[in-house]
Amino acid sequence: MPELRKDPILGRWIIISKERGKRPTDFIIDKDESKGGFCPLCSGNEKTTPPEVLNYAPAPHIPNTPGWDLRVVPNKYPALVIEGDLDKVGEGLYDKMNGIGAHEVIIETPNHDEAFTYLPKERMKLVFVAFRDRLADLAHDPRFKYVMIFKNHGRAAGASLEHSHSQLVALPILPRMITSELEGCLAYFKYKERCIFCDIIHQEKSQKSRVVCENEKFIAFVPFAPRSPFEMWVLPKQHSSSYVSMDNRSFDSLTELFSECMLRLDKCMAGVPYNFVLHTAPLRSQPLDHFHWHFEIMPKLTSIAGFEWGSGFYINPIPPEEAAEFLREVQI
Amino acid sequence: MPELRKDPILGRWIIISKERGKRPTDFIIDKDESKGGFCPLCSGNEKTTPPEVLNYAPAPHIPNTPGWDLRVVPNKYPALVIEGDLDKVGEGLYDKMNGIGAHEVIIETPNHDEAFTYLPKERMKLVFVAFRDRLADLAHDPRFKYVMIFKNHGRAAGASLEHSHSQLVALPILPRMITSELEGCLAYFKYKERCIFCDIIHQEKSQKSRVVCENEKFIAFVPFAPRSPFEMWVLPKQHSSSYVSMDNRSFDSLTELFSECMLRLDKCMAGVPYNFVLHTAPLRSQPLDHFHWHFEIMPKLTSIAGFEWGSGFYINPIPPEEAAEFLREVQI
Repeated sequence: MPELRKDPILGRWIIISKERGKRPTDFIIDKDESKGGFCPLCSGNEKTTPPEVLNYAPAPHIPNTPGWDLRVVPNKYPALVIEGDLDKVGEGLYDKMNGIGAHEVIIETPNHDEAFTYLPKERMKLVFVAFRDRLADLAHDPRFKYVMIFKNHGRAAGASLEHSHSQLVALPILPRMITSELEGCLAYFKYKERCIFCDIIHQEKSQKSRVVCENEKFIAFVPFAPRSPFEMWVLPKQHSSSYVSMDNRSFDSLTELFSECMLRLDKCMAGVPYNFVLHTAPLRSQPLDHFHWHFEIMPKLTSIAGFEWGSGFYINPIPPEEAAEFLREVQI
Repeated sequence: MPELRKDPILGRWIIISKERGKRPTDFIIDKDESKGGFCPLCSGNEKTTPPEVLNYAPAPHIPNTPGWDLRVVPNKYPALVIEGDLDKVGEGLYDKMNGIGAHEVIIETPNHDEAFTYLPKERMKLVFVAFRDRLADLAHDPRFKYVMIFKNHGRAAGASLEHSHSQLVALPILPRMITSELEGCLAYFKYKERCIFCDIIHQEKSQKSRVVCENEKFIAFVPFAPRSPFEMWVLPKQHSSSYVSMDNRSFDSLTELFSECMLRLDKCMAGVPYNFVLHTAPLRSQPLDHFHWHFEIMPKLTSIAGFEWGSGFYINPIPPEEAAEFLREVQI
């Protein structure tokens, strides 16, 4: 059983998810298992993954057989496990609990060679719909407080499989990054009685220099203080705290804009590794006036070294205004 | 002039340190400039670095000429610059200031092939003494609030030069990681009237399972909730909040223990990339009852992917008790 452990000084939680029988040298990262060989995510190999929890198919379809457009399956090597109780306990001054959670893989296409950035729009839209559907479904399990949805693309960004996929982890505690964002947003709201993200959108639209693209419902910009060169945020222009409230027309608009961001990024730096994450309100929370859901897209271009680890500062070699200009001006 | 910018939601500071004339593709990380060719840190090449701010030599010695044991020089490509004023200004709802600070390189040996882990003890001791001497000197500049001392070893850990060196960055603001640690320590102290690190040392000594090694004055253990497999912390057993108060006998003892930790780590995983950082009290602070200086040693074995970025959680595949056992039992 994986274990959740809390650092007593910082309150930071760690998942101890033991990979059995490994020796220290098995953890050296410089190995590449991502290319070539058998792919468990390809169409035709459905039986090699755990049974699917969701699929979208163009016609009536037998689960775990070919013919799907998108499928969601439990991760075969989950960081957290779905069966059991939390059993919170102390150990002297330390705190720990069982590693209960869900860890799922969203397989974004049946075709091995179709990168997310170049998915047909209708297929990419299904990915965004699947995020909403899994969030809505996992909210029924009262053990879970948050679902973190993320994508790793490319080995440098932590992807261990080449086939286009994203992942979700349902967590029994609110992650620190989310509580910090919620606290920051609430402090601003108490002072201004406005959502800080709404104010940021307003300022970005008027300054223009960091905006990458926008359409009727969404906007994408390089944030004022980006951790990484070419970091981008994608937000709905109209205030909304939870991704679960997305409707069909919004999905079209989101897909349009997100797809454009990814194309611009790839045209600037072909094949660049990246992560993206969705930050939305905690599961089952009421609509929040102070929080605004958003995606953060992080190209993996600089390495995190001792200074960043030790300080929490990041060093970024490209001013966001220049990064945005590169992204705006590239031909797509 | 580099710029310091603050994320308005999280309060996280970013250094925008522009590398002139670069194109987006220049930032792809998968290039290796660390091996072969000319080394500016080698003995004989003193004129290719900025003039030294400190040197230790066995005999009277002309600065910036061979014959030194250790030298400290300003970084030729500094993230922050030493000349100027902070000029804090707002930009709408955003905050920024000039990137004023010091960025120095501690060249730990004149010999290119001498890795830190295998330095003779007398030479390694000079590294720890240099950390203290630079901290004490930089404390005289009232613009600086903190000095972050760190080491990157190996390309995966962010080192761009192979020759053994560490670095320091003097900062005009307290880094978030330090304020979080100080706040966590203070909260515990208010509740218990004891230093949390002293209590942790007490518990680690009684549980034994995570202790790697100890001597009269120092202890090294794998923390209860480590971010990375084989993470180690090194602390003085006697309460002390500031590294600046280190004396000569303590340096011998620290060198002895630190050297043993590094040897054990390298014997478990030869050539493993790693970072270490020093966390000490802010510059010019009074002795603090609630804070305890320490080193954190972080082998770079797992990649930071979307989940870690997005959540602030870390996934660690080795329980710290097992990592400590590997480290204790390896032959050195």
